[in-house]
Amino acid sequence: MGNSFGRVFRITTWGESHGGAVGVVVDGCPPRLPITPEEIQVELDRRRPGQSLITSQRSETDTIQILSGVFEGKTLGTPISMMVCNQDARSQDYAEMQNAYRPSHADYTYDAKFGIRDYRGGGRTSARETIGRVAGGTIARKLLHMRYGVEIVAYVQQIYNLEARINPDQVTRDQVESNPVRCPDVETAQKMFELIDQARREGDSVGGIIACVMRNVPPGLGCPVFDRLEADLAKAMLSLPATKGFEIGSGFSGVLMKGSEHNDLFYASGDRIRTRTNFSGGVQGGISNGEDILFRVAFKPTATILRPQETVTPRGEPTILKPRGRHDPCVVPRAVPIVEAMAALVLADHDLLNQAIHNPLSRS
Amino acid sequence: MGNSFGRVFRITTWGESHGGAVGVVVDGCPPRLPITPEEIQVELDRRRPGQSLITSQRSETDTIQILSGVFEGKTLGTPISMMVCNQDARSQDYAEMQNAYRPSHADYTYDAKFGIRDYRGGGRTSARETIGRVAGGTIARKLLHMRYGVEIVAYVQQIYNLEARINPDQVTRDQVESNPVRCPDVETAQKMFELIDQARREGDSVGGIIACVMRNVPPGLGCPVFDRLEADLAKAMLSLPATKGFEIGSGFSGVLMKGSEHNDLFYASGDRIRTRTNFSGGVQGGISNGEDILFRVAFKPTATILRPQETVTPRGEPTILKPRGRHDPCVVPRAVPIVEAMAALVLADHDLLNQAIHNPLSRS
Amino acid sequence: MGNSFGRVFRITTWGESHGGAVGVVVDGCPPRLPITPEEIQVELDRRRPGQSLITSQRSETDTIQILSGVFEGKTLGTPISMMVCNQDARSQDYAEMQNAYRPSHADYTYDAKFGIRDYRGGGRTSARETIGRVAGGTIARKLLHMRYGVEIVAYVQQIYNLEARINPDQVTRDQVESNPVRCPDVETAQKMFELIDQARREGDSVGGIIACVMRNVPPGLGCPVFDRLEADLAKAMLSLPATKGFEIGSGFSGVLMKGSEHNDLFYASGDRIRTRTNFSGGVQGGISNGEDILFRVAFKPTATILRPQETVTPRGEPTILKPRGRHDPCVVPRAVPIVEAMAALVLADHDLLNQAIHNPLSRS
Amino acid sequence: MGNSFGRVFRITTWGESHGGAVGVVVDGCPPRLPITPEEIQVELDRRRPGQSLITSQRSETDTIQILSGVFEGKTLGTPISMMVCNQDARSQDYAEMQNAYRPSHADYTYDAKFGIRDYRGGGRTSARETIGRVAGGTIARKLLHMRYGVEIVAYVQQIYNLEARINPDQVTRDQVESNPVRCPDVETAQKMFELIDQARREGDSVGGIIACVMRNVPPGLGCPVFDRLEADLAKAMLSLPATKGFEIGSGFSGVLMKGSEHNDLFYASGDRIRTRTNFSGGVQGGISNGEDILFRVAFKPTATILRPQETVTPRGEPTILKPRGRHDPCVVPRAVPIVEAMAALVLADHDLLNQAIHNPLSRS
Repeated sequence: MGNSFGRVFRITTWGESHGGAVGVVVDGCPPRLPITPEEIQVELDRRRPGQSLITSQRSETDTIQILSGVFEGKTLGTPISMMVCNQDARSQDYAEMQNAYRPSHADYTYDAKFGIRDYRGGGRTSARETIGRVAGGTIARKLLHMRYGVEIVAYVQQIYNLEARINPDQVTRDQVESNPVRCPDVETAQKMFELIDQARREGDSVGGIIACVMRNVPPGLGCPVFDRLEADLAKAMLSLPATKGFEIGSGFSGVLMKGSEHNDLFYASGDRIRTRTNFSGGVQGGISNGEDILFRVAFKPTATILRPQETVTPRGEPTILKPRGRHDPCVVPRAVPIVEAMAALVLADHDLLNQAIHNPLSRS
Repeated sequence: MGNSFGRVFRITTWGESHGGAVGVVVDGCPPRLPITPEEIQVELDRRRPGQSLITSQRSETDTIQILSGVFEGKTLGTPISMMVCNQDARSQDYAEMQNAYRPSHADYTYDAKFGIRDYRGGGRTSARETIGRVAGGTIARKLLHMRYGVEIVAYVQQIYNLEARINPDQVTRDQVESNPVRCPDVETAQKMFELIDQARREGDSVGGIIACVMRNVPPGLGCPVFDRLEADLAKAMLSLPATKGFEIGSGFSGVLMKGSEHNDLFYASGDRIRTRTNFSGGVQGGISNGEDILFRVAFKPTATILRPQETVTPRGEPTILKPRGRHDPCVVPRAVPIVEAMAALVLADHDLLNQAIHNPLSRS
Repeated sequence: MGNSFGRVFRITTWGESHGGAVGVVVDGCPPRLPITPEEIQVELDRRRPGQSLITSQRSETDTIQILSGVFEGKTLGTPISMMVCNQDARSQDYAEMQNAYRPSHADYTYDAKFGIRDYRGGGRTSARETIGRVAGGTIARKLLHMRYGVEIVAYVQQIYNLEARINPDQVTRDQVESNPVRCPDVETAQKMFELIDQARREGDSVGGIIACVMRNVPPGLGCPVFDRLEADLAKAMLSLPATKGFEIGSGFSGVLMKGSEHNDLFYASGDRIRTRTNFSGGVQGGISNGEDILFRVAFKPTATILRPQETVTPRGEPTILKPRGRHDPCVVPRAVPIVEAMAALVLADHDLLNQAIHNPLSRS
Repeated sequence: MGNSFGRVFRITTWGESHGGAVGVVVDGCPPRLPITPEEIQVELDRRRPGQSLITSQRSETDTIQILSGVFEGKTLGTPISMMVCNQDARSQDYAEMQNAYRPSHADYTYDAKFGIRDYRGGGRTSARETIGRVAGGTIARKLLHMRYGVEIVAYVQQIYNLEARINPDQVTRDQVESNPVRCPDVETAQKMFELIDQARREGDSVGGIIACVMRNVPPGLGCPVFDRLEADLAKAMLSLPATKGFEIGSGFSGVLMKGSEHNDLFYASGDRIRTRTNFSGGVQGGISNGEDILFRVAFKPTATILRPQETVTPRGEPTILKPRGRHDPCVVPRAVPIVEAMAALVLADHDLLNQAIHNPLSRS
């Protein structure tokens, strides 16, 4: 249970780190959408390991195969099955995991829940699971872009104590991709790179904050009450490994404002109704209002560190864990395309739900 | 769409602010759970308006009726339908809403989505919708308490710039209920009360942060990947009116720690496996680990203020809104039982899901 | 669990026979659909007891109340909560039920599942549950009629061994309503009436077959694979009390044809693609093809009979049940509007799902 | 949409007839269930083409690969991804399908719904989709067998006008597998074989009826109201290609009985409560009562016949279709394991749902 996301545009991911492959089934994608493996590969390449010095050196090409649902370059409206084979699975590196619960990993909780665990490389808890999210999210993104010109740009806002100065209204994907940290403030990006590299050399890890902006979202997406757009975004983001927080618009800092400062005043701009400020973050009452959607996600420092740590065995005996596997000293730069993918999935699902309720009295 | 929450323990809420009633249907509650209307009324009384000077003066007894699903004081395993009639619905106070979009409310977005709107008192967007959540959540809470002794205590952590000093390990419901602000730090609570009252007198509003602790949660609740416990909590909290952020465990401040500091080391304590710190907030890999679950929710300042504001009419013409209705200068104290109710709903749903997968080889 | 039906246009019913009320919440109905309580009452009057000599004499006006979701005569797009109060609940008639499992009723299985049972009038297993289905289905039907001119006409095809001669292409609602049996073949209807009345006088019961035709259904409704239109219709019909079988188009008798006889040949008729025969029953590959949808449902003889029957007590001791309650000697005539309601719910849900996937490349 | 089945034990199938592969993801299978590829292959071999003269001669080994969710021979509680590569895909045989709608196939309705179609071998409408159902269903069956000793035996009851004489209480899988028709009445089976072979030689096709019995089902599975066990079985069966009808217990013939004959009287047998007859078919009020579950499914004659047929092109022009592809003159024998698989999936899902509601007051 729990391996599907979305109600109408729905993905189901599968796969363990050291099994034969990882993959995703996308059900509910509308028919006749042009999509190529190359478009998906571009995004997978942004999340794969081995991109730079500061990411895990596991060597995976992460080559996508589309097994169904696409015919002559267009979606059929049937399930799109996509798969990436696991290649560089050095299971021997992970022998320690069998006999020691890694701190702040899911080894203990999986055992508590399931009573069985594929300890090799973290099994199902591996971040390789997010390959399926990125593949599915890329299709969602294409749909949104073709329909509305939606742009989704995520970027690294903060690493440890280094905060970037970025104007979310202006930031472009090219700026994000200009450096391996994926922080458009190039000066801070350089410092972040050095900070991450130092953590790597110390066998330690750091976390950070990703910000994301979605532009050209039409008004009316999102549902009242439980399936609010921001609620689904929050769930999507907190479903990512290593995330600890989510905020939209003014977020936690909105607490420091009075209502008279925080309210976004409406005005007319041509045919559109706009707001003068955007503390709402593009969503009011759970429904998009046409302004940019702005949110931020907090990532903890990676749990895998290359230092001895106290822990216990599955039988509860004290032991010292000395990890040897490859690790990411900071997952945040690689998480940028994953955040974008999840945001696209949420939005595409709400777009389809919204189509369902329109024009009650017209003949289709 | 969007008016149900939960997969197995599921609530569906209904009702507009100035319609005949608001209510909820609870489907999936296990049979033979003792429950009385009085137990539910206690929680509804904590969220109803008119409790004190600093809440809306709308006069509602919010008396619960249980219409089905309970027989001779016990649940039947059939849907539990509960209803509260609307009494003090002064629709005339809201005539302005018909012709002006209230800033930072959902008036415009509902019109954009639905092309129709019950403008009286905010219609479906009214916080009266949360009555159904509290009623359903109280039943979930009873179930969790009887099964595991789960305690759920939420409290006001911050109002505007006033932060309380509270030890979440120790805080009790009695402390929370000791003052109308629901802040267990009584000294700060008094200052918060004065701050809120001043905002009220100025026709302005303030927001704040609610913290919540869940104790005695058994290990193993939550699902991997998308339906992580923290993801569902995040969705639950961001589905509440006026919320802008969610964090669990170390949250956004965890970004300022290194992995070597942030990792929660395991140790054995009798039969239990415990962690020395709890930066994880009681959840690892989406699954509870038996430590206290700790999260925080940010609420913006109430959008309804009693000051003239620039806005537009539904036709896009500029206008000035001069609200007259009753309003809450700060919703945070009343939101405490609502946060607890949603947390209970998430946990009960995961408890039932977890029951479903156990003991694959035993005869039931 | 199990009290909701539909994915996008979804109803949730609640209520026990002798509780305070029975009702339904409709979530997912598109906004701006005109609907009045009177339109719903017409259908409820067709299913209520006491219509004629051959139905249960329980005296219920079954007056519908719309509590939410409708404003100034139009749907809001928010949940529509509807309720009927139980009036003539003579619980004392059912005291026997507490201590004896009624044969071919759900008394034993509810106890086996839930370990608790509201024995009064059958509790949740009472056919009063179908009030909510009819109320919700009437809204679905209105939607389909306004959008496409869909007509749904069900009628009694057979009672016990009496088969009617009816041309489903021509049958009208007026013909169906012309007699209390709801069989448009008036001559056979008279014999059916006498047969049912005789069963009533003998304290016995009879079953029958309802046929249903849906006209003007646009091509393209239904989903491939699991959520085929006929699969959802089958589920809808088998979810009705007392049903034992479902068939569509040629049904079981199609087994006696060869492929060369059974295939429906395509031809062009103006702009439309039509079939020369309709053994498919209007559905091919799970999707409507624009021909009339034709299906039949088998109802067993009512389990409640007014004769002594061998059975056991909840403790497994032999006993003789001597029922005294009111009963329907044949539920089939009252089930006609219920079959229509469920058919409408299936179709409306698929219509909304279908809206969700259209026009992938156009801006909405 | 529509490619998933089940709520807790859920399968999602994918794949087109002439794409790279077909497969299934099983989510919700409990952990620690022993399962091998060989156990699944046995069932796939029962459904694959080329088994005998009377099945399609398409040459496919249908070799299953398990890509995830199983570790050291046991399920992990994570998604089980399984795949079969398509081998003998002679797309050229199907060129006619591009320009002519095959009568009583889904070519036209897919075009009407999706506006695009993979015409090669029927694309998604191919019965190859059922490979995923059989693979997933085999796991469900293993679970049910290990927990309760559930036996599921389906068999051919009728082909065209040839009816077998079989006692469902006694029938065994070995008897079913004793001949290529899968009819345990060997004498009739021989006649059925000849009838099917003659249809094959004439380029025609025949249909039939499959009966299925499920033994050792514990009482209490199934949900009231919409998700009744028989409703879900009906949906499961009508979701299979070529099915036109479903009946449970007395089915359509129960209409010819009076209530006094049809009611299944309860009696005590040791600790169990049993019924003297089983016209209910093992289900009362939607919930299993511990008696054998008995149902029947009607299959139409295969739509693919090797004779010229009138039809139209996608542009609505008249044309003559002369099919050349391989075809099954009768799908019924190959459908036996598919019916069993779907029955197992329904039952396993209800078993998990039922686990979820038990023991509300005990600590887990």
